[in-house]
Amino acid sequence: MVIVMGPEATSGDVEAIVALVEAAGVEAFVSKGVRRTIVGLVGDVAQLDGASLRGMTGVRDVMRISAPYKLVSRENHPERSTVHVGGVPIGPGTVTLIAGPCAVETHQQTLDAARMAQAAGARLLRGGAFKPRTSPYAFQGLGEAGLRILADVREETGLPIVTEVVDAQDVELVAKYADMLQVGTRNMQNFALLQAVGAAGRPVMLKRGMSSTIEEWLMAAEYVAQRGNLDIVLCERGIRTFEKATRNTLDVAAVPVAQRLSHLPVIVDPSHSGGRRDLVLPLTRAALAVGADGVIIDVHPQPEQALCDGPQALVEDDLGELAQVMTDLPPLLGKSAAAALAL
Amino acid sequence: MVIVMGPEATSGDVEAIVALVEAAGVEAFVSKGVRRTIVGLVGDVAQLDGASLRGMTGVRDVMRISAPYKLVSRENHPERSTVHVGGVPIGPGTVTLIAGPCAVETHQQTLDAARMAQAAGARLLRGGAFKPRTSPYAFQGLGEAGLRILADVREETGLPIVTEVVDAQDVELVAKYADMLQVGTRNMQNFALLQAVGAAGRPVMLKRGMSSTIEEWLMAAEYVAQRGNLDIVLCERGIRTFEKATRNTLDVAAVPVAQRLSHLPVIVDPSHSGGRRDLVLPLTRAALAVGADGVIIDVHPQPEQALCDGPQALVEDDLGELAQVMTDLPPLLGKSAAAALAL
Amino acid sequence: MVIVMGPEATSGDVEAIVALVEAAGVEAFVSKGVRRTIVGLVGDVAQLDGASLRGMTGVRDVMRISAPYKLVSRENHPERSTVHVGGVPIGPGTVTLIAGPCAVETHQQTLDAARMAQAAGARLLRGGAFKPRTSPYAFQGLGEAGLRILADVREETGLPIVTEVVDAQDVELVAKYADMLQVGTRNMQNFALLQAVGAAGRPVMLKRGMSSTIEEWLMAAEYVAQRGNLDIVLCERGIRTFEKATRNTLDVAAVPVAQRLSHLPVIVDPSHSGGRRDLVLPLTRAALAVGADGVIIDVHPQPEQALCDGPQALVEDDLGELAQVMTDLPPLLGKSAAAALAL
Amino acid sequence: MVIVMGPEATSGDVEAIVALVEAAGVEAFVSKGVRRTIVGLVGDVAQLDGASLRGMTGVRDVMRISAPYKLVSRENHPERSTVHVGGVPIGPGTVTLIAGPCAVETHQQTLDAARMAQAAGARLLRGGAFKPRTSPYAFQGLGEAGLRILADVREETGLPIVTEVVDAQDVELVAKYADMLQVGTRNMQNFALLQAVGAAGRPVMLKRGMSSTIEEWLMAAEYVAQRGNLDIVLCERGIRTFEKATRNTLDVAAVPVAQRLSHLPVIVDPSHSGGRRDLVLPLTRAALAVGADGVIIDVHPQPEQALCDGPQALVEDDLGELAQVMTDLPPLLGKSAAAALAL
Repeated sequence: MVIVMGPEATSGDVEAIVALVEAAGVEAFVSKGVRRTIVGLVGDVAQLDGASLRGMTGVRDVMRISAPYKLVSRENHPERSTVHVGGVPIGPGTVTLIAGPCAVETHQQTLDAARMAQAAGARLLRGGAFKPRTSPYAFQGLGEAGLRILADVREETGLPIVTEVVDAQDVELVAKYADMLQVGTRNMQNFALLQAVGAAGRPVMLKRGMSSTIEEWLMAAEYVAQRGNLDIVLCERGIRTFEKATRNTLDVAAVPVAQRLSHLPVIVDPSHSGGRRDLVLPLTRAALAVGADGVIIDVHPQPEQALCDGPQALVEDDLGELAQVMTDLPPLLGKSAAAALAL
Repeated sequence: MVIVMGPEATSGDVEAIVALVEAAGVEAFVSKGVRRTIVGLVGDVAQLDGASLRGMTGVRDVMRISAPYKLVSRENHPERSTVHVGGVPIGPGTVTLIAGPCAVETHQQTLDAARMAQAAGARLLRGGAFKPRTSPYAFQGLGEAGLRILADVREETGLPIVTEVVDAQDVELVAKYADMLQVGTRNMQNFALLQAVGAAGRPVMLKRGMSSTIEEWLMAAEYVAQRGNLDIVLCERGIRTFEKATRNTLDVAAVPVAQRLSHLPVIVDPSHSGGRRDLVLPLTRAALAVGADGVIIDVHPQPEQALCDGPQALVEDDLGELAQVMTDLPPLLGKSAAAALAL
Repeated sequence: MVIVMGPEATSGDVEAIVALVEAAGVEAFVSKGVRRTIVGLVGDVAQLDGASLRGMTGVRDVMRISAPYKLVSRENHPERSTVHVGGVPIGPGTVTLIAGPCAVETHQQTLDAARMAQAAGARLLRGGAFKPRTSPYAFQGLGEAGLRILADVREETGLPIVTEVVDAQDVELVAKYADMLQVGTRNMQNFALLQAVGAAGRPVMLKRGMSSTIEEWLMAAEYVAQRGNLDIVLCERGIRTFEKATRNTLDVAAVPVAQRLSHLPVIVDPSHSGGRRDLVLPLTRAALAVGADGVIIDVHPQPEQALCDGPQALVEDDLGELAQVMTDLPPLLGKSAAAALAL
Repeated sequence: MVIVMGPEATSGDVEAIVALVEAAGVEAFVSKGVRRTIVGLVGDVAQLDGASLRGMTGVRDVMRISAPYKLVSRENHPERSTVHVGGVPIGPGTVTLIAGPCAVETHQQTLDAARMAQAAGARLLRGGAFKPRTSPYAFQGLGEAGLRILADVREETGLPIVTEVVDAQDVELVAKYADMLQVGTRNMQNFALLQAVGAAGRPVMLKRGMSSTIEEWLMAAEYVAQRGNLDIVLCERGIRTFEKATRNTLDVAAVPVAQRLSHLPVIVDPSHSGGRRDLVLPLTRAALAVGADGVIIDVHPQPEQALCDGPQALVEDDLGELAQVMTDLPPLLGKSAAAALAL
């Protein structure tokens, strides 16, 4: 059971709730978010009287939810949600293209990639300033200098920025520059980071862990939501299997499954799924066809010189076909191509 | 290295080749197929002189192929192949819908399912008379009685038949009725069966093993091809992963990967991939969008009474949308919808 | 529910049973084995009267079993079973070493390997005459010539023979030579083969499929058992995972899990699990320590010249340590080392 | 290439090195650890002159290492290392039992569990004060109050403490109380956390990620090592596979594989591997037999009331057998049981 407090609720109101439920032998977890405070109840909640709880001062809503995730479940919110990032919608009515370089390397490279992205119909710019790398000897990103480059390129192109944050201690810094905070696959169960981005007041893109079930993914989203932030976009990026021909195995079925279990938008990363340039466009088509609310794609002006994941970046020559895909497929799914075209 | 003998080659011609290569310390494997005999060479083939071999009596071709599979590799045959089943093409120019009941139960059920399939645009009828079941206590299929029902329904609907064979000893029997022999996921490395269907003179549909790599799948196809049968269609049907929300994980990237490595057509089974009715249409769209040359789908007039896999069968209400998908998507991929429509 | 008929039961007795249960709307599957006939009942068995059934002529036992596998379940047979192979026990009281070459290549190589096996304490000789190989260009075994070599070596060493059969059509031939029939990992769900070995009157070693669950493995054993053959030994040989440092991942927990669910003996193949010589002894120790009833190990006099799986075969130098392991560990588990030593 | 500076090296010495290598077009990553500073070189290191580098002021060692991990590789340090935790050794000569409750709940529960652990031969106490939980509604640990309980129980029992830290921001706090910092499976690639524990001046236990390869695990250890901390113990805790009978699949082969690739000690967590009480002792035996340098085991005085992972905790009745295992097995592996017995 989840009790959602209104914005007007005082800490006294919350304490009164907690005292009441604890007196009934139920545990209460208070999560103070930016926009609202939530009290999660765990234990024998059947004996609690929902109506009385709903009547207490400061309470906006009381929900009994059977799914293990509550706030992000579709039981809680039957309409699928749209998340806005710098004014760009990601949600059921549209298909949104996010593109850019895997890592920010220089201003010129980032600007060139952003122009490429825009030419293909992208509405949001991706680019990593903090890169989580398997090897400590690999390029780790430019840090704040990279964030400044992204902000400059946003200025020049008008594209809002999606960028990764890898450490709870950096959330405030990254949120100063970014329009959307990305949590990467290796951090999907970094709960401190999830809570920090949940409290940062920015939309969040949550990548699926490379061996996480869909249920665990939604539980991770719940950690973000508990801090009062429901502006979450789920991103399927391939799971780890025995197959070696591709970097990961794109679990395309995860898109409709997650959309049925949760009201959150679901997008796909075809670049990291396959890890091969020649698979990006086929997997993009598959993602749109299965009903994804968007895709996030690596593009690079000179992938052979990329400091990170060059082999999977699209190049100039691929952009026409990408733009075509973004134009042709959405209408077949009853989605608007507007997001992809109206630049 | 592979030596392909012409149809006119005598057994003396073959023996001469074998003697020559064995004298050079290389092993020779002779595969006598229905249409041609192939001599596979293993060992230090670098020292053999291709030109001399090519000049020997009865030799049609000599191929040096770097892939571990030879006859099915795209190195061997750069054009993608089209396989014809009872006159229906499966290949690069078309998208072919195969549909029908998972298992043949009665004549009426099979005929009803075939009519449903046809209404949705199917050109081939699937239906199992021999069912490989995890449990020996589950329904194992009607056997030859089921094959007779399929043949009757073919008569009534004009749809050629695709049906599974599970034992090398049954190949002759099944080939008497079937237009295409299906080898199931559990038998992908049943090499005796592969060789038997390779020699049966019928097109073969080879499902990917549920934990097989794409390379192993192509090696299995090579077993069929070695018997002189290159009328093979590969079928991706989902692989086994840790995810529990779906029966298997559809590896949609396997379609373009296999198409690049092999000249054989590749289709997808969205019914067994997801194992859930609500995922069949999304996964069908994904399959077509990624470039599959066809799909094979379970339909059932009364799935709640099905003896096998009822929960994944499409019903009457789904057919309109399936037909729509089969009409809308192929043109976007530069494929003809003709196969699906011209009944 | 399973009805076990006595050896004296006539076909008329069986027909009477079938008529009775079918009259009650329950399906009956009759399995005629070498030693007994079994009638498996599927459907609403709750309404059947066990006592009446037990009273019918020819009925030896009537069992209600909740596990999906019946005859091999420990519910059915709470005592763990011992299987005897040419007089050598495999079961709860002992630890049995089976060793020999992966493939039979020549008489000398097989005899040398058998002597090596014996020196390490082996009581049974393994060796493949029919080899299921991923590639059709790889060595496929010597066939019947290999079986004759095995029989000769048995004569010379006194070691009973364990050898693989890969095709239902070969079962009779292989059973003429072998003391125990092995079903390999790729054939775990080759149901025709399972039924054929079940009817062959020889003990069976059933390897776990490389991506099969323990439950599916027991279901496969049930196919063998249904033909009246309960002399089945389960063999864990590693499962397929994402890890690349080893050929497969030895699922050591599968040993106690399978022993709790089934009364059948469970052994381990440390050679195929790791696929590396340097892991064979550590994995053998792990197998014995976790409670395996035996191990099956590749040994080869000259592994660098082996036609199959040379990199995982133990050599002369390893045998002393293997013998030591077979002596030291069993007593700690309350098992007798006798099987390994009393040659 | 890695340059290890001596403790006497000044920052000027380091700057001189960096200037030199950067002048040669090679990138330098400086990691200042508690005990030493390390300069990792990435790029075309072949052109650098190792002898000259070795001669520069402040340089202790220059290593060319082919493995992608450098400091933790056995190439770098051919002798296997022993890590001391509060005076207790973990390493090649001994087998160390670490035991205690999954989560610290109360002082009494923790003390009772510690006494149980000690009775079974444990030399170190495990217990979680910060618990990473899949669900935000599950018990998250007592935080600092839990650490204080652990410190009190250490006082009462003499057992040094191993406890998990889940957030880089908590490292300082946890290090104030703990003798060894544990990084959990979900955080194996939380690089900020790895760097923070690397700098904390405490031994670290690094659990393998649930779908991480052994190579990725060693790369994660390298992140810790780069901060100057080589007191790292690797812990195999089961990987994620398709098998559902166990919580995870214990990859027992990972122990010898990791020991051959790295000089770090490797232990096993049989409790989390199987997730079932009845498998803890068999898996403990397997772990010791395969050569693990220790095991970490959940024990709980009243597991049915445990707030976390009760079903896998050993109880009072299991302790005698655990003690027996810790006594019997190590001598067979040439290891001393002293660590387990000399309390």
